[in-house]
Amino acid sequence: MAVIGLGRFGQSLALELMDDGVEVLGIDAREDVVQSLDGRLTHVVRADATDEQVLRQLAVPEFGRVVIAIGSDIESSILVASLLRRFAVPTIWAKAVSDAHGLILEQLGVSRVVSPEKDMGRRVAHLVRGTMQDFIEIDADFAMVKTALSPELAGTRLGDSGIRRRYGVTVTSVKHRSGAWQPATQDTVLREGDVLLVTGPVRQAERFSRSAS
Amino acid sequence: MAVIGLGRFGQSLALELMDDGVEVLGIDAREDVVQSLDGRLTHVVRADATDEQVLRQLAVPEFGRVVIAIGSDIESSILVASLLRRFAVPTIWAKAVSDAHGLILEQLGVSRVVSPEKDMGRRVAHLVRGTMQDFIEIDADFAMVKTALSPELAGTRLGDSGIRRRYGVTVTSVKHRSGAWQPATQDTVLREGDVLLVTGPVRQAERFSRSAS
Amino acid sequence: MAVIGLGRFGQSLALELMDDGVEVLGIDAREDVVQSLDGRLTHVVRADATDEQVLRQLAVPEFGRVVIAIGSDIESSILVASLLRRFAVPTIWAKAVSDAHGLILEQLGVSRVVSPEKDMGRRVAHLVRGTMQDFIEIDADFAMVKTALSPELAGTRLGDSGIRRRYGVTVTSVKHRSGAWQPATQDTVLREGDVLLVTGPVRQAERFSRSAS
Amino acid sequence: MAVIGLGRFGQSLALELMDDGVEVLGIDAREDVVQSLDGRLTHVVRADATDEQVLRQLAVPEFGRVVIAIGSDIESSILVASLLRRFAVPTIWAKAVSDAHGLILEQLGVSRVVSPEKDMGRRVAHLVRGTMQDFIEIDADFAMVKTALSPELAGTRLGDSGIRRRYGVTVTSVKHRSGAWQPATQDTVLREGDVLLVTGPVRQAERFSRSAS
Amino acid sequence: MAVIGLGRFGQSLALELMDDGVEVLGIDAREDVVQSLDGRLTHVVRADATDEQVLRQLAVPEFGRVVIAIGSDIESSILVASLLRRFAVPTIWAKAVSDAHGLILEQLGVSRVVSPEKDMGRRVAHLVRGTMQDFIEIDADFAMVKTALSPELAGTRLGDSGIRRRYGVTVTSVKHRSGAWQPATQDTVLREGDVLLVTGPVRQAERFSRSAS
Amino acid sequence: MAVIGLGRFGQSLALELMDDGVEVLGIDAREDVVQSLDGRLTHVVRADATDEQVLRQLAVPEFGRVVIAIGSDIESSILVASLLRRFAVPTIWAKAVSDAHGLILEQLGVSRVVSPEKDMGRRVAHLVRGTMQDFIEIDADFAMVKTALSPELAGTRLGDSGIRRRYGVTVTSVKHRSGAWQPATQDTVLREGDVLLVTGPVRQAERFSRSAS
Amino acid sequence: MAVIGLGRFGQSLALELMDDGVEVLGIDAREDVVQSLDGRLTHVVRADATDEQVLRQLAVPEFGRVVIAIGSDIESSILVASLLRRFAVPTIWAKAVSDAHGLILEQLGVSRVVSPEKDMGRRVAHLVRGTMQDFIEIDADFAMVKTALSPELAGTRLGDSGIRRRYGVTVTSVKHRSGAWQPATQDTVLREGDVLLVTGPVRQAERFSRSAS
Amino acid sequence: MAVIGLGRFGQSLALELMDDGVEVLGIDAREDVVQSLDGRLTHVVRADATDEQVLRQLAVPEFGRVVIAIGSDIESSILVASLLRRFAVPTIWAKAVSDAHGLILEQLGVSRVVSPEKDMGRRVAHLVRGTMQDFIEIDADFAMVKTALSPELAGTRLGDSGIRRRYGVTVTSVKHRSGAWQPATQDTVLREGDVLLVTGPVRQAERFSRSAS
Repeated sequence: MAVIGLGRFGQSLALELMDDGVEVLGIDAREDVVQSLDGRLTHVVRADATDEQVLRQLAVPEFGRVVIAIGSDIESSILVASLLRRFAVPTIWAKAVSDAHGLILEQLGVSRVVSPEKDMGRRVAHLVRGTMQDFIEIDADFAMVKTALSPELAGTRLGDSGIRRRYGVTVTSVKHRSGAWQPATQDTVLREGDVLLVTGPVRQAERFSRSAS
Repeated sequence: MAVIGLGRFGQSLALELMDDGVEVLGIDAREDVVQSLDGRLTHVVRADATDEQVLRQLAVPEFGRVVIAIGSDIESSILVASLLRRFAVPTIWAKAVSDAHGLILEQLGVSRVVSPEKDMGRRVAHLVRGTMQDFIEIDADFAMVKTALSPELAGTRLGDSGIRRRYGVTVTSVKHRSGAWQPATQDTVLREGDVLLVTGPVRQAERFSRSAS
Repeated sequence: MAVIGLGRFGQSLALELMDDGVEVLGIDAREDVVQSLDGRLTHVVRADATDEQVLRQLAVPEFGRVVIAIGSDIESSILVASLLRRFAVPTIWAKAVSDAHGLILEQLGVSRVVSPEKDMGRRVAHLVRGTMQDFIEIDADFAMVKTALSPELAGTRLGDSGIRRRYGVTVTSVKHRSGAWQPATQDTVLREGDVLLVTGPVRQAERFSRSAS
Repeated sequence: MAVIGLGRFGQSLALELMDDGVEVLGIDAREDVVQSLDGRLTHVVRADATDEQVLRQLAVPEFGRVVIAIGSDIESSILVASLLRRFAVPTIWAKAVSDAHGLILEQLGVSRVVSPEKDMGRRVAHLVRGTMQDFIEIDADFAMVKTALSPELAGTRLGDSGIRRRYGVTVTSVKHRSGAWQPATQDTVLREGDVLLVTGPVRQAERFSRSAS
Repeated sequence: MAVIGLGRFGQSLALELMDDGVEVLGIDAREDVVQSLDGRLTHVVRADATDEQVLRQLAVPEFGRVVIAIGSDIESSILVASLLRRFAVPTIWAKAVSDAHGLILEQLGVSRVVSPEKDMGRRVAHLVRGTMQDFIEIDADFAMVKTALSPELAGTRLGDSGIRRRYGVTVTSVKHRSGAWQPATQDTVLREGDVLLVTGPVRQAERFSRSAS
Repeated sequence: MAVIGLGRFGQSLALELMDDGVEVLGIDAREDVVQSLDGRLTHVVRADATDEQVLRQLAVPEFGRVVIAIGSDIESSILVASLLRRFAVPTIWAKAVSDAHGLILEQLGVSRVVSPEKDMGRRVAHLVRGTMQDFIEIDADFAMVKTALSPELAGTRLGDSGIRRRYGVTVTSVKHRSGAWQPATQDTVLREGDVLLVTGPVRQAERFSRSAS
Repeated sequence: MAVIGLGRFGQSLALELMDDGVEVLGIDAREDVVQSLDGRLTHVVRADATDEQVLRQLAVPEFGRVVIAIGSDIESSILVASLLRRFAVPTIWAKAVSDAHGLILEQLGVSRVVSPEKDMGRRVAHLVRGTMQDFIEIDADFAMVKTALSPELAGTRLGDSGIRRRYGVTVTSVKHRSGAWQPATQDTVLREGDVLLVTGPVRQAERFSRSAS
Repeated sequence: MAVIGLGRFGQSLALELMDDGVEVLGIDAREDVVQSLDGRLTHVVRADATDEQVLRQLAVPEFGRVVIAIGSDIESSILVASLLRRFAVPTIWAKAVSDAHGLILEQLGVSRVVSPEKDMGRRVAHLVRGTMQDFIEIDADFAMVKTALSPELAGTRLGDSGIRRRYGVTVTSVKHRSGAWQPATQDTVLREGDVLLVTGPVRQAERFSRSAS
């Protein structure tokens, strides 16, 4: 996989891929960035990715997947997207820093546009109020929430807890204190200090998490 | 809640909070940003949040929760964090744009530091390879994955599928084509086109998602 | 018609359109440019054309034809092109300042891309050598040339001149000294000082023009 | 021939000249520009053309024709024009980026001033309205237009078509579908899908082209 | 001892330490500064002190005392303070250029914050009025003043002078013309031209110094 | 008194003067600085102090004492010094930011040049080593030191302590725990926790302070 | 007379003209410059002199003499010169800041080009060596020198001094101590302390001046 | 002689000195300036003249005469003047770019301050009106003027011309057409086309020159 742009997003992405055993070609125009990643990616090259010849010499047209992780230079991001499309790279992901930027990338035919700042802003909005430990929107109006167990439910068998009936959510996994995560069944007995993974409609999942605080 | 800095992250955060019925005071130094959000937040003010008098006039010391969503100006971000700590604001969240920035915010006593670019980079690393539709790391080595059903499992009863035995993961929810998400039980019959929500150790969840492609 | 960007190209275009009786809305971000054109275009507005709301307020989505004549700011040019495409404006012309810029505009679906510097460079290449008074490439290898009559042909009837046979070109119009242009027929008698309009393959038209010098 | 300034205009000009077998010395101050043209022009040199010694060392005073294709740096353009005039170079062409710039070049004695943006703006004004495929102003109020044949004239012998009488224009060449351009005679039979080359007064040529749409 | 930042403050500090026989490692990012101090400090290194690896390579974590003398770049000053705290350097002194800067340094746990401009401003305020030769505030409302002897006291035995009674200050040392400083006792005879060192409450010490002029 | 330049040094100086009842005219070119001091100085004016007319309108030539506290703009500092000398202002103090700057000010006839960064650097050099609480150089090789009492001297009568004999320094004042400063006499009994004010040659005063740690 | 550009040269020129009773229109683009000259020139206007309309509104085309005293902006200087030539202003003087600039101004037809820095450099070269009090080159190899009388010639009648014979120069005027300048005749008696005005070839005039030192 | 700063003034000065056989050390910080003068001055060095060590290494303190010809950087000019004064260089000339700059240079003890732009502005004021060919102010109200002969005086013997009586000026030298300059005596016969050198009070010399036009 090739990652173009090795700022905070591209770097974190490239290193996680390496960690999972994926070969990664990293490209960035900044000498210090390239040096600091030298030896940590399969290949890391200092190059101007907006130059068609440069990308050809790096065999980028042969890659099946390329991520455009260019930070704030919208023009460069679009130039690279245009080149990758002309190379007919099958899968192109690109980071957008504004809605307009994202729309242009989509109009150019980028496979998927990612907006870290925007997405994280929405996610943090659910966490910052404090009752949830994590929140992830899985679909329109379907979310997964990680939350503490309400003390009053401690000692209850999940099947008897009435959680699904009262809150419209499903407890899918449970972690006991100091233990590992386990699938929740009707027979799981909830204990004080448990952390639960719950799925359900956004508002209902939030309401359940508030009941624990 | 007060949100200081209304760039892409702060704006997305503030609007999602409004959407959930939370009152939000937004502060930014840029006239155009403030104008574009006028009427969409409870209050939105053009002000220099690094000025103690300004924050006092806006009653920020009385807020229980403040998010420092300042974009790229590390010095301002730190100045505001210092002020909020002196005001003894109980809960302070702050966005960091580098590891060093994040550590300083923690040393100053910020409640929680958020790194959108870095976190999204790691998350996208799992998605970009293409077999998962979504991936969220819930804990060290425990993740939730949204993935398509492997065609060969279509028509199988979940309890008979051997998914837990063979992959070490648990299917927690299922969405049939055009349907809504439902909790998965042993009796759920998997159908072609189903999308599954699966929990389990990171590598195993990924392996399961690859089996579908 | 709307013309976005009123630099040298956009201005010349807009004024020529006005001259031909076409109503023109001109948009530019520069106060001095807008002032200098005030009263010379149907409407001329100082506005940021990369802002969707601004274009909507100016009713740009209702225009059938829009020319993006933005000078050197590639990012703005692309942003506007993206917006116009989303508005589904039927005919969009845009000026490109580089090949890469031109390709992106085409990938975005712009109807026709114009490259004044490049096109004029090619045209001047034919004129600068000095035998032709004008040159225009009409098709691949088919050009029209304006050139002086070779003195040795003065007094000849066109049908007897052997021009078509010897040079493979056709004399289509003739202008006698101080006279107007007239269609050339076999019976036209060429005179000293005549200027001819000749069509034919590029190299042959050039060879003919050289014969006159 | 020497071309000073190898931006979009100068480059396109120099390459077209090479294509026609003319030897070209290209001069530009930018390393990347010079490198990208290396081997594509007879000689290409990175040099400061505003320095008299530099031009002398490159033997520019011995050239019969020099084109000043300097992009946007008016001062440099004028300095070079001044030097070339002092060298008594017989033919100097120069690109102007504004009317004032053009007038100064003329006052300095430049042989011919070219204004790509302005000229192309006027030309595009005729094309953008959509009925003509090409338009070139040959003289004051005498233009050549390339346009499609009006369907109602298909099947007519040109001599019988009444085009000259009704529109005051002359059809000089015709291209049948998939064919080559041919001189039009009275006996040429117009067919559906023909493209015509027409000469005549500007307004009349335009009126004729509109009749085809 | 390590001194980070070798501007006017850091340089003066480092050289005075060297003068007192203390080994000093000086660090600055500017080549010219480092060169001008080469050979005058035990070690002087051109390095970016905000880079953790750089500080580790210079063994800064092993130092018992480090002074952050970074001039005007608040962000760098804070980054270095953060690093030194993480290294658990026992004693960290740092220069602050504003009150807010000083407070952040204290919040980060810097041992002592120095404000040269501010402190010197206050000290000069006492000297500029002209009756004192030196003034130093030792405590809240307790100062030491160096001042000339009032001529009318010349020839008096200190015990008989009534200085303590009338002014509430104590003469602690006396310097006769061309002589050295000597402790003042009740038997010291004051002479014309003596310079006195006096301690006492700020206002009273000032009043005494004015009596001499 | 007039203070020109109201940065950290000038501001601290001006406010301390006000505190002591001196009337102060403050001049600075920055609007925000002037506003923040409005009402805290007798007069505070936003003006360009390098303009002779401006200084005349503010009656600066009539002042007996003026402090040039201009921060970092050496040229302005010198221009103002030149003007004040031409006005024949009797006493001019000026802040210097480099040795060269200081020498020019002296060459221009400034009464006294102050170097806060340099002086504080030297002073901090004595304090940073940790045994002294304060250090002030009163003369060449004569200093005053504030230091804790060595525990082993607790309970001793000062006359019996042998401090002057063993260290060559004189204890001039003593502060008992929670008490005020008092002149030290031979009969003063030193107690645990006392803080002493000691005068003597620089090295000896330092040696004494080290004996306490 | 109009003076365009009111820097040090233009201002000094305009004020000297006013002093001689000439009406002067001064034009400059800088507000502060215009304000400081308000009331000291007949008219002084803040305007962009490179704008043809502006010059027409100020009636500059009707002036008989215009001085282009624009400081360092060569492009503006040339633009204004071009405009004045098109207005057919009879006499145009212009300041040049380089030889190339001067040549362009001459090529544009400026009546006389002045080079203050260059001319003064040459003049100071003769004065700085110290024997002459003034030097002015009147023609190629003909200069006027102001110099002290050699003491050995004191008391001599000019006709007997042999100055013309020995030095090849002519004493034209003499100023006795505290007196006025008087024409020198053969009968003028030279006195100690006289200052002489001498004309002659450059080298000889210099040799004579050296004889006095 | 040393010339510091080799802009237009310094360069012209240094080259004229070389021309007169004076050895010149030229110093400038700009590489291109130094290169272009290499071989044309005795020594020419690229160096920072504000650095005391640099000047010492170039032996500048041993020079008897130094010219500070620094262009527009007032601070550097003053720093160099301060250094030269400390070196006790006997004769220092310096160029000033403003009155304030000139006064500071004088306050620092510079031997003579030169103001090319200002002096030339005053001189040109006399020439631009057109009747004089040259004008030089020799003293307060005593000038030398070069002017054409009034046609009506042609053929007159100078002693009979009444010039001194009527205009109060003295004709000191005469140049006949194509001839050399000669001292004027009472017997000199004025001829048509003569150019005269005249001395006298400023206004009277001007009045005489006007009589010729």
